[in-house]
Amino acid sequence: MTDAPAERGGPVVVALDIGGTGMKCALVRPDGEVAHAERHPTGAERGPAAVVDTILDVAEGLAGRARAEGLTPIACGIGVPGLVDDAAGVAVWSSNIGFRHVPLRDLTAARLGLPTALGHDVRVGGLAETRLGAGRDVAHVLFVAVGTGIAAAHVVGGSATAGAHGAAGELGHILVRPGGPRCGCGRPGCLEAVSSASAIGRRYTELARMAVPPPAGAVFTAAEVVERAAAGEELAGRVWREAVDALADGLATAQALFDVETMVIGGGLARAGARLFDPLRAALRERITFHREPRLVAAALGDEAGCLGAALLALDSLE
Amino acid sequence: MTDAPAERGGPVVVALDIGGTGMKCALVRPDGEVAHAERHPTGAERGPAAVVDTILDVAEGLAGRARAEGLTPIACGIGVPGLVDDAAGVAVWSSNIGFRHVPLRDLTAARLGLPTALGHDVRVGGLAETRLGAGRDVAHVLFVAVGTGIAAAHVVGGSATAGAHGAAGELGHILVRPGGPRCGCGRPGCLEAVSSASAIGRRYTELARMAVPPPAGAVFTAAEVVERAAAGEELAGRVWREAVDALADGLATAQALFDVETMVIGGGLARAGARLFDPLRAALRERITFHREPRLVAAALGDEAGCLGAALLALDSLE
Repeated sequence: MTDAPAERGGPVVVALDIGGTGMKCALVRPDGEVAHAERHPTGAERGPAAVVDTILDVAEGLAGRARAEGLTPIACGIGVPGLVDDAAGVAVWSSNIGFRHVPLRDLTAARLGLPTALGHDVRVGGLAETRLGAGRDVAHVLFVAVGTGIAAAHVVGGSATAGAHGAAGELGHILVRPGGPRCGCGRPGCLEAVSSASAIGRRYTELARMAVPPPAGAVFTAAEVVERAAAGEELAGRVWREAVDALADGLATAQALFDVETMVIGGGLARAGARLFDPLRAALRERITFHREPRLVAAALGDEAGCLGAALLALDSLE
Repeated sequence: MTDAPAERGGPVVVALDIGGTGMKCALVRPDGEVAHAERHPTGAERGPAAVVDTILDVAEGLAGRARAEGLTPIACGIGVPGLVDDAAGVAVWSSNIGFRHVPLRDLTAARLGLPTALGHDVRVGGLAETRLGAGRDVAHVLFVAVGTGIAAAHVVGGSATAGAHGAAGELGHILVRPGGPRCGCGRPGCLEAVSSASAIGRRYTELARMAVPPPAGAVFTAAEVVERAAAGEELAGRVWREAVDALADGLATAQALFDVETMVIGGGLARAGARLFDPLRAALRERITFHREPRLVAAALGDEAGCLGAALLALDSLE
């Protein structure tokens, strides 16, 4: 077909999803197809200014690569963690990267000469899951990312709500266990301190040490806890049940306040599949009284959701 | 002035706020001025069909009265408790009146020959406080009604969010005290079971009976508990502190999820004034970590909020 090369050209969005450890980057076509993907270390230990330099370099490199391949970069979308002022395009605060009021949108737009949109990593992930993934065609969705931390995005009619200060959806920092384990935020009993992947690994490691000293320095991951629980190990089963119960409490609270149709669960913990979803659905059902039980589904886009969502946000901002 | 009578004419909305015990009813001018107000018992013990008849009779009577006074009824707005499908105009479910899928909007529109809007009592109250009351000119507001029960309305840009099934904002039914007092909804530890006016009165009555038997059948109200706590009575102080602490936990959870600028506290408990707001502000401040602390203010419209909000909803639906 003679028109194949022309077909492979066309517009793309330069999309970056900045995490505490790595950056997922892509060239995304308007229909959501990924034309090219690459990853870079964030290098957060170098400080926020160096991270910003890397973001700008990587974005510029992607735009150049697009042009070299006959594609036309039309916009740039960036997702970052922490507090994000979408409207002003400012990364207001981030614990793991150290952003403090970084005008990342305007810096990127100036460097690339492209219209740029900045959003919150979980909110853009929610956007992607709602438009292209597991929440497609659903008007009221809560996207919940359960990994090192826990955060959510309430997506209504295809738009994620940011709140008054870019801090909406912090499901990890709602109280579920008064007097419980201390959270990274400083308060005891937050959902994230009980049900995040890191909390599950930490809790099991602590209790296992008390029971039988493991090899010096042995640290267990949530994935190992899930494996051991499935194999019938009592301690792992207990830690897993406690985490799932607390997560169900958190989701029940979210349902009481948001009243969604579907909850899309993503992040590392969702990889546990039926070992998470079966007991979580049962525990949530127990907690629902007069509310309607939301459909609980696994995220469909994996760790590409952030990049795809950043691209969608950029496309939205062109309209 | 010869034009005074004409000035006192003009358009009005027939507005009804249906509660479990009483109906607050009014003729409301488009600018929010109440031209006439009246109250009727709901008579919920007669069953939902009889309540619907009363609503239609009262609404028709108000429209007739308006015309007799030279006013022009242009619409009707009704606020009801429970689950409300605003879009369909259906009172889906109510525990205290017994509504089950009552198409109240269309019934009223047919009887009155007026465009009619149906909304949730707390959501329309939040609408009124945000447009005419304590949340005026604030884009992100949470209106929290603390009375016999506890419910909230999240009002963004002057519109209250209803959720997928008309059940958003059920702040009274989020878990704050695992294993705590059983709630009317059937679950233990809901905010409403600890911090509502009825829970406060009930808890103090129970504990007072254990300490010193009061006169047979004596039942204390939340207002009496607040009085006694202010007078330095230890038991009342403890019950009041526990209720305020749990309410602060609930508001902190709401702030983590909604991220609002202002929380407007209404309902009977707000009448405690500084005795509520001083300790509640302090307790909420303790619980806020990386989030922005919301402004905590008392509702300004008192128990007229529901009627005014029903009128606003009706006016919105005309547009």
